[in-house]
Amino acid sequence: MSTAAVIIIGNEILSGRTQDANLAFIGKRLESLGINLLEACIIPDDEEIIINTTRNYKERFTYIFTTGGIGPTHDDITTASIAKLFNVPLEKNPKAVASLERHYGSAPINEARMKMAYIPANAILIKNPVSGAPGFQIGNVFVLPGIPQILQVMFDGITDRLVGGPPILSRNISTNLRESSLAQGLGFLQSRFTTVSIGSYPYFKKGRPGINLVMRSTISSDLEDIYSEIEQLILQTGGKILDSDTE
Amino acid sequence: MSTAAVIIIGNEILSGRTQDANLAFIGKRLESLGINLLEACIIPDDEEIIINTTRNYKERFTYIFTTGGIGPTHDDITTASIAKLFNVPLEKNPKAVASLERHYGSAPINEARMKMAYIPANAILIKNPVSGAPGFQIGNVFVLPGIPQILQVMFDGITDRLVGGPPILSRNISTNLRESSLAQGLGFLQSRFTTVSIGSYPYFKKGRPGINLVMRSTISSDLEDIYSEIEQLILQTGGKILDSDTE
Repeated sequence: MSTAAVIIIGNEILSGRTQDANLAFIGKRLESLGINLLEACIIPDDEEIIINTTRNYKERFTYIFTTGGIGPTHDDITTASIAKLFNVPLEKNPKAVASLERHYGSAPINEARMKMAYIPANAILIKNPVSGAPGFQIGNVFVLPGIPQILQVMFDGITDRLVGGPPILSRNISTNLRESSLAQGLGFLQSRFTTVSIGSYPYFKKGRPGINLVMRSTISSDLEDIYSEIEQLILQTGGKILDSDTE
Repeated sequence: MSTAAVIIIGNEILSGRTQDANLAFIGKRLESLGINLLEACIIPDDEEIIINTTRNYKERFTYIFTTGGIGPTHDDITTASIAKLFNVPLEKNPKAVASLERHYGSAPINEARMKMAYIPANAILIKNPVSGAPGFQIGNVFVLPGIPQILQVMFDGITDRLVGGPPILSRNISTNLRESSLAQGLGFLQSRFTTVSIGSYPYFKKGRPGINLVMRSTISSDLEDIYSEIEQLILQTGGKILDSDTE
């Protein structure tokens, strides 16, 4: 099965000032493509850290997606760092220039904007229909912007380059029980159904505890079977089913 | 300066089903403590990955905070993984048992609940006044739960164990300009003010582009100086100041 990792580049996420929204988007998309997102990290705009993290990930996973740091300002160093990692020069890419010219119209492309047309040699561009500045793919690394509205459009433009498997299906049930009341039964079911992963996620809503149970599998019938079993387990334990995705 | 990293443990964050809220909370708290949060990662509930990631981080950073995976169910494997990493046994901790008993009152502590009283030998407990099950500190690793309401209370209970520095101060300005119009001026200011880091974060709101500029420093006067310079730069470039934290 193809695997993936996401590298979120940007000090603003680490400082807590900006809430990342890209990981959840990419995670959902990969799930429907049947690609297993196994890890993500959030790192600062620091050349050495970008290079070391990407080097480590590109050996371990089928696809790597980076987000952020490809704009025109001094703190946008992702493109140059990735070029250095792959040991290739940055080149003024004619298609990238044309895309920026289409976007900025008759306005002259100033130096800062032109920075966004410098792409690692031999990289394959990723089109940006929203704001002109393209991303790129080099090897198994896909370099994408940080702004969610732009990233989402660009991501949907590269899904035909990704080889996935059967989509990962999921079902979920919420209940008012505490985790400790269901733990034994869930552990037993998990050991019986090896093709399904059961996640148990406790929460507090309006001061009341509950659990959200998520079942994931590529095999639809196994998912249905375990769903029924968990439903029964909850009712037999005296719990209520608060919400389920069958409704 | 003290540094930190956060390890977010849980398949549900990677699948995009749950939006993490703990990183932003911890990031803000560390900032006010003068501790530099340098990296974070999101990993699945997988023993080998938890061990390898924590081993790597605990050598590189002053403090490591893990979130998630310390509950009673089969997918809660953080505590056992960390014990394995430190090569110490899990022991039934009398204080943890007492805390669970206080929380669950006269109800018997069933096997699943009792699992949460098993803590790595010689670890220092982290009190959980909300739901009884404690976290723990072993070496420079702080093991915390995933539920934000509980994590936040517990985190505030450990800040006296952390040695920080002068708080990292910040100012921010938003403008309707595009990044490419300010990039040169910002780059120049960044090279002049080495004690301040300037972050430039483009966004789209209601279909209009803008930038949020964030200045961070431990030196208040430098922050005020650069704030004025950036304000002038925006006005001279013909931009509007949309929002600023002086108002």
